[in-house]
Amino acid sequence: MDHQDLIKELARETETRIVFLVMDGLGGLPVEPGGPTELEAANTPNLDKLAAESSCGTCDPIAYGVTPGSGPGHLALFGYDPVKWNMGRGVLEACGINFPLKPGDVAIRINFCTVDDKGVVTDRRAGRISTDKCRELSAELDRIEVPGVEVFVTPVKEHRAAVVFRGEGLGAALNDTDPQVTGKPPAPLKPGDPASEATAGLVNQFLDKAKEMLAPHHPANMILLRGFDSFKKYPTFYEIYKLKAAAIAHYPMYKGLAQLVGMDIKKPGDELPDLMACLEEHWNDYTFFFVHVKKTDSYGEDGNFEAKVKVIEAVDELVPRLLKLEPDALVVTGDHSTPALLKSHSWHPLPVLVRSAYCRPDEAAEFSEHACARGSLGRIPSVALIPIAMANALKLAKFGA
Amino acid sequence: MDHQDLIKELARETETRIVFLVMDGLGGLPVEPGGPTELEAANTPNLDKLAAESSCGTCDPIAYGVTPGSGPGHLALFGYDPVKWNMGRGVLEACGINFPLKPGDVAIRINFCTVDDKGVVTDRRAGRISTDKCRELSAELDRIEVPGVEVFVTPVKEHRAAVVFRGEGLGAALNDTDPQVTGKPPAPLKPGDPASEATAGLVNQFLDKAKEMLAPHHPANMILLRGFDSFKKYPTFYEIYKLKAAAIAHYPMYKGLAQLVGMDIKKPGDELPDLMACLEEHWNDYTFFFVHVKKTDSYGEDGNFEAKVKVIEAVDELVPRLLKLEPDALVVTGDHSTPALLKSHSWHPLPVLVRSAYCRPDEAAEFSEHACARGSLGRIPSVALIPIAMANALKLAKFGA
Repeated sequence: MDHQDLIKELARETETRIVFLVMDGLGGLPVEPGGPTELEAANTPNLDKLAAESSCGTCDPIAYGVTPGSGPGHLALFGYDPVKWNMGRGVLEACGINFPLKPGDVAIRINFCTVDDKGVVTDRRAGRISTDKCRELSAELDRIEVPGVEVFVTPVKEHRAAVVFRGEGLGAALNDTDPQVTGKPPAPLKPGDPASEATAGLVNQFLDKAKEMLAPHHPANMILLRGFDSFKKYPTFYEIYKLKAAAIAHYPMYKGLAQLVGMDIKKPGDELPDLMACLEEHWNDYTFFFVHVKKTDSYGEDGNFEAKVKVIEAVDELVPRLLKLEPDALVVTGDHSTPALLKSHSWHPLPVLVRSAYCRPDEAAEFSEHACARGSLGRIPSVALIPIAMANALKLAKFGA
Repeated sequence: MDHQDLIKELARETETRIVFLVMDGLGGLPVEPGGPTELEAANTPNLDKLAAESSCGTCDPIAYGVTPGSGPGHLALFGYDPVKWNMGRGVLEACGINFPLKPGDVAIRINFCTVDDKGVVTDRRAGRISTDKCRELSAELDRIEVPGVEVFVTPVKEHRAAVVFRGEGLGAALNDTDPQVTGKPPAPLKPGDPASEATAGLVNQFLDKAKEMLAPHHPANMILLRGFDSFKKYPTFYEIYKLKAAAIAHYPMYKGLAQLVGMDIKKPGDELPDLMACLEEHWNDYTFFFVHVKKTDSYGEDGNFEAKVKVIEAVDELVPRLLKLEPDALVVTGDHSTPALLKSHSWHPLPVLVRSAYCRPDEAAEFSEHACARGSLGRIPSVALIPIAMANALKLAKFGA
């Protein structure tokens, strides 16, 4: 029995409200021995007070030592076993642009690239063409017809687009055509199973026509395909948890991820405080809110310790406004760590706090990696956070007589 | 591989003795911000000294955020996966009255109720008839004959009784007939599988005859059925752990639960210290003792913080007497939390201590939720306690060469 099946059995619909305040890539590392992490360097009086009133702990999104991508990191936060439900880059990209995927669709990421007259890749990003150019070329590719299958090409940004194949019995056991280095031609498709063999034929027809069509558009005179993935329908937040869920996020991919699990997507204004305004606006309409802060991760990826600290401090300033709404259960954490020191996602467990009228506060009196590592939640998997939050909001019936 | 299969392979029979001192519903919550839990408010010099000599931690009976019923809470303590081995209310009730269930029996809880002349339920508890009346009416119902099946009706207490159907191929996928509210007739049986369809027919015959027989006995002129469950045999403590196990408990249900897993039931006198007298009396005859204190839970359910504190203090006074027996491994914990604040079972992890000559004590120097949350056992599932105790009593062989 999957833990979600158990929670589904116990979940009951109530009027209590849960907020997940997610700072992407929150977890960090000291940049010098004995120094503070980003979160510890940040001046966060409001989060610290919250920690003192909360159960604190650390959580692992996937498994000990495993660094999560954005997709599985969020699936874990949403309580979906991230290994069982993991999606490929193609589906993630299609989500990010809100492409209405149907079960069985095969989605693939496109990179426009430059090839020379021998077909050798000379620039894997086609000189990072403009987004306008990307739109124009994607519209052209979208007109390609391949017998027996529907093909949809949608622009993303700069040299990036997405293509979706829709038809009966498509396979997605196909390798990237991106050779990863310049000086080589695109890699040929090697199907990993019988269904994917037929699909490879269809994709090759598409590639041939794309090459012909793009020939006059140097530097974007060819495409590379990455992250073949077949879309499967996810059970929704309401189906499993009986939660009416809204996602408040600036970045398309996170909105896409939230939509996959049946959340309604609410569009905040462009600034950080607009997340709170959006939360306030929709407070009465939902029982679960996923509030996503992106820039903690972006600055972590840039290796910009100070800028990540500043974003955390800006989020801290929003906390009093959030508390005024009186959420019945509040969870503050991230989807994975992104230490500026590593300039990348990392495997480190994340600090987490859970606050409710019934949370049994511990001695952790600041929101930091150090304090949370000694908190009463212990070290738990991220998938446990939804059940714990639901329990704290009195949304779970007793198990057994 | 279930963890029990592994332990079964490693278990060896020795003369060392394990005691599980279980305070039902032990875990608590502060009733005011920053205040103590029940256990923390209690003056427990003996338990605190024990904690200082022990490995401490917290344990989850079922899963993160999941509130256990008494059945699964105890199964977890006994090392049985509580989701896999969960039993319904009918079997639990039959256990509580020590009805000798056989595998395949379908057990159901009975509530005597009042119906008006249109068959509408006007009192779901028949005015809480006396236990004597319950005995008299149960004896009558016990005489009902249904062709093709044996039917046993046993009184429990006040308006509560239990009925067991014994026969070939019975199903238990049947809903409660209790409409949960007055003003409605009993709900009709809707079988959830083919075996239960035939069983529904038999149960309906029983209900028709019961209605006829009870007609002159207003207010107890009808019955409601709840918690259909089919009994499956549990592997015993001796079969799995090679432990000769005795249960020392005042309340029928816990004796019933212990009997399910093959423990011998020892009857203590009515007072709390009688638990110790009973333990002393049987000390030489067993290698495992389950000692159950009920009132911590009862007062928690009543919302009586102070009375729960007093029970914990009374248990604390018994500790020196228990230690005189020199158990090789001693575990002190509960089956679930019952914070007076919530007046109900809850999902909070429980404080636990494990004491032996080889337990590796930590810095937790008092037995409290706070101290245990920082203990060296960490946060573990309750099913791990039996293996840990067996290890500490040197009852588990090495795994692998």
